[in-house]
Amino acid sequence: MRYSVAAAARGAAFALFVSLTLPAAALSAEAEASSDISSFTLDNGLDVVVIPDHRAPVVTHMLWYKVGSADEAPGKSGIAHFFEHLMFKGTSTYPSGEFSEAVAAVGGNENAFTSYDYTAYYQQVAPAELDDMMRFEADRMRNLVLSEENIETERQVVLEERRMRTDNVPSAILSEELNATLYENHPYGIPVIGWKDEIEGLTHDDLKAFYDRFYTPNNAILVVAGDVEADKVRKLAEGTYGAIPRGPDLPQRVRPMEPDQRTARTVTFSDPRVSVPNLSINWFVPSHRRAEKGEFEALAILSEVLGEGLRSRLYQELVVKQGIAASAGSYLQGAAYDYSGFVVYGEPRGTAELDAVEKALVTEIGRIKTDGITPEELETARTKILRDQMFMRDSQTRTANLFGATLATGGKVEDITGLPERLAAVTTDDVRSVAQRYLDLSRAVKGYLLPAEEKRS
Amino acid sequence: MRYSVAAAARGAAFALFVSLTLPAAALSAEAEASSDISSFTLDNGLDVVVIPDHRAPVVTHMLWYKVGSADEAPGKSGIAHFFEHLMFKGTSTYPSGEFSEAVAAVGGNENAFTSYDYTAYYQQVAPAELDDMMRFEADRMRNLVLSEENIETERQVVLEERRMRTDNVPSAILSEELNATLYENHPYGIPVIGWKDEIEGLTHDDLKAFYDRFYTPNNAILVVAGDVEADKVRKLAEGTYGAIPRGPDLPQRVRPMEPDQRTARTVTFSDPRVSVPNLSINWFVPSHRRAEKGEFEALAILSEVLGEGLRSRLYQELVVKQGIAASAGSYLQGAAYDYSGFVVYGEPRGTAELDAVEKALVTEIGRIKTDGITPEELETARTKILRDQMFMRDSQTRTANLFGATLATGGKVEDITGLPERLAAVTTDDVRSVAQRYLDLSRAVKGYLLPAEEKRS
Repeated sequence: MRYSVAAAARGAAFALFVSLTLPAAALSAEAEASSDISSFTLDNGLDVVVIPDHRAPVVTHMLWYKVGSADEAPGKSGIAHFFEHLMFKGTSTYPSGEFSEAVAAVGGNENAFTSYDYTAYYQQVAPAELDDMMRFEADRMRNLVLSEENIETERQVVLEERRMRTDNVPSAILSEELNATLYENHPYGIPVIGWKDEIEGLTHDDLKAFYDRFYTPNNAILVVAGDVEADKVRKLAEGTYGAIPRGPDLPQRVRPMEPDQRTARTVTFSDPRVSVPNLSINWFVPSHRRAEKGEFEALAILSEVLGEGLRSRLYQELVVKQGIAASAGSYLQGAAYDYSGFVVYGEPRGTAELDAVEKALVTEIGRIKTDGITPEELETARTKILRDQMFMRDSQTRTANLFGATLATGGKVEDITGLPERLAAVTTDDVRSVAQRYLDLSRAVKGYLLPAEEKRS
Repeated sequence: MRYSVAAAARGAAFALFVSLTLPAAALSAEAEASSDISSFTLDNGLDVVVIPDHRAPVVTHMLWYKVGSADEAPGKSGIAHFFEHLMFKGTSTYPSGEFSEAVAAVGGNENAFTSYDYTAYYQQVAPAELDDMMRFEADRMRNLVLSEENIETERQVVLEERRMRTDNVPSAILSEELNATLYENHPYGIPVIGWKDEIEGLTHDDLKAFYDRFYTPNNAILVVAGDVEADKVRKLAEGTYGAIPRGPDLPQRVRPMEPDQRTARTVTFSDPRVSVPNLSINWFVPSHRRAEKGEFEALAILSEVLGEGLRSRLYQELVVKQGIAASAGSYLQGAAYDYSGFVVYGEPRGTAELDAVEKALVTEIGRIKTDGITPEELETARTKILRDQMFMRDSQTRTANLFGATLATGGKVEDITGLPERLAAVTTDDVRSVAQRYLDLSRAVKGYLLPAEEKRS
């Protein structure tokens, strides 16, 4: 079976942001593609987005549920991700494994992932198989068998996954507690996979209630990208998903929000398994949904100029010029409902001290806050985003991902198609302004991953 | 009006622990007093504790609700404390102010306080007024008028209280975010008074639901201490509180618990209003209810030896011998349902550096973990607790406080009366053992309060 927890790792979340900015530019540059995109809603509330792509006889079928770990009740962490496992067990219609075998039998791929804000399931198959995929996926939306045996089996798998991916990985241990420190009130401070004791405590009733509440057509988004037309998708969707009755209306997703933070914090994990130390400086910023007009795009350009890629300021200064860092950069977390993370990081090279890397990072942050960026840097950042679209266009999955993640975090199709214009409107002043507003060291959380013998006071 | 938020400040929580250990010793030393204590439960579920004390014609009447900020729903912080205010508004029986005027008219005192685990209301009056106090207190348990006008008026008072006591007080700002960092999952990380935005968002429906759920006789404890006998209290309680119907059964108080923490954290607040810097080293330890047998008592003795009072190791070493600290010590937070805090603190004197104070604190912590304490220190700590009882015995309020706080956090009367024996059973090995188990610097949260010009990396 193929499971993954997306967005629990910073890299995964980063990928989502790349997805968010790049294909939008792609869609603008190739208007014929974007004009083909259509979206509609079935009578039972299921939102559908169709992204035709006829370059190859392949279709990507993704079902996104607007529920993630941040929607869990207190003390029930891990329940959203638990379903990523349970959904591969049997239903009252098909025994366990039959769906996966059907995908494998036609040479397809499948996977699933869970984030703070959504849970998604997908298959990539030949267009002729789309109807079957929809039938299987619609079936497990409502007919899952939540037997005690399935629950206990998958609980052990999830606990093993947690041991392997978090408890045995120093950077993941640090990341988990760093998030818990960065978010003082919002559930983004709780890990997507869940706290161990709470995974152990989830009951059949917890799972049943969660399934009945959130696994409904009116809480889902169907994204189909590939060698297929909207009319065909609509017909197939109506014949499969369309038969499922609408579930109870869900209240707006209101999570406890962050207070006005005023302290600087550090989180340090020292472990013998760490050979090279590293540090990160972390802030949360408004998500694309919550940001003021233009703010999120300015943050994207800020991150691009400051620390994305080999031509960025951080790489050029710390890695190339000073030679003190093996890596240095920044990233902005992508599609999220309430907050995105803005992260600056560095890792010393050779005999350089972590302190020296930190000082250099802080200097560059100070410089971009004081002096802003140049018109040339702004233009280069925009061009880079436009150029990167070429790589993006090759991936049906990433394109489908973008639409699913955007819609599942409160965005609209137009938020994607309109992004190039919004990027074009960003000025150098906007970038300096968001740097000054958000990159405040007196409210940052720094994370230190250290070899066991190193000590910081 | 007289309001206070107890246990939001560390000092207040400390006071509770002092209350917890001292009167127990008192009760043992003066057996006649402890043997008079009686407890019973009314038919509607109200628990009653009576502590006769005939030295003066005074009686302390306290009503404790087993609900505090840690019982609030996510996003609804501050609601428990909000009631501490609303309960002084009018009921359907008496207009606003009538209860307080009645207390003042007979020369009495009244007050109320809210903690993570309880909300309590009390009056101190002549015994003849006890019946009246019960009548008023029983009335507002169920007949409070939750008008929009009362709510809005008190919301402004609460917000002003928050501004005055937290947002304008550097040490309180630090303390709030330090707790949010120390508790990664448990609601003890959320301030008792509530986050500003959440106080602003509380609705009439939120308050009404909270009142109906938690303000019931079967969720309350009546503590009466003073010049009165149990029979009389029972008769009065039955005639007043006894008329209130039992409320719905409440589920066990299960809060999200802490994961296995593995990182060292710091929280730093720098502000121009800070003249002398200070630091604290913070851990959470099991509450008296959750601790293994003897563990909480060993922690109490550990704190006593390490840092309580002028003869403690920290005071003697840092203040007297080295002369680098203006103050240095430790304390163990008291009556709590899930976790207690163990805190070590210090403040430099004159030109001494904060770093030097921190190093000295860390050295003493290391020493007590390695070598433990001497039999003489153990004996002195026990004797000190027994001696301190004399001061305690003078306060009816503190005695009533002890019983209320203990019972409201899941303890029993016998937990108090049996404490001297449990203290006597603690060995020097037990103390070293809890020091090694809990005072782990790789999992501590350090708090730094700094003048604005100072910087820490």
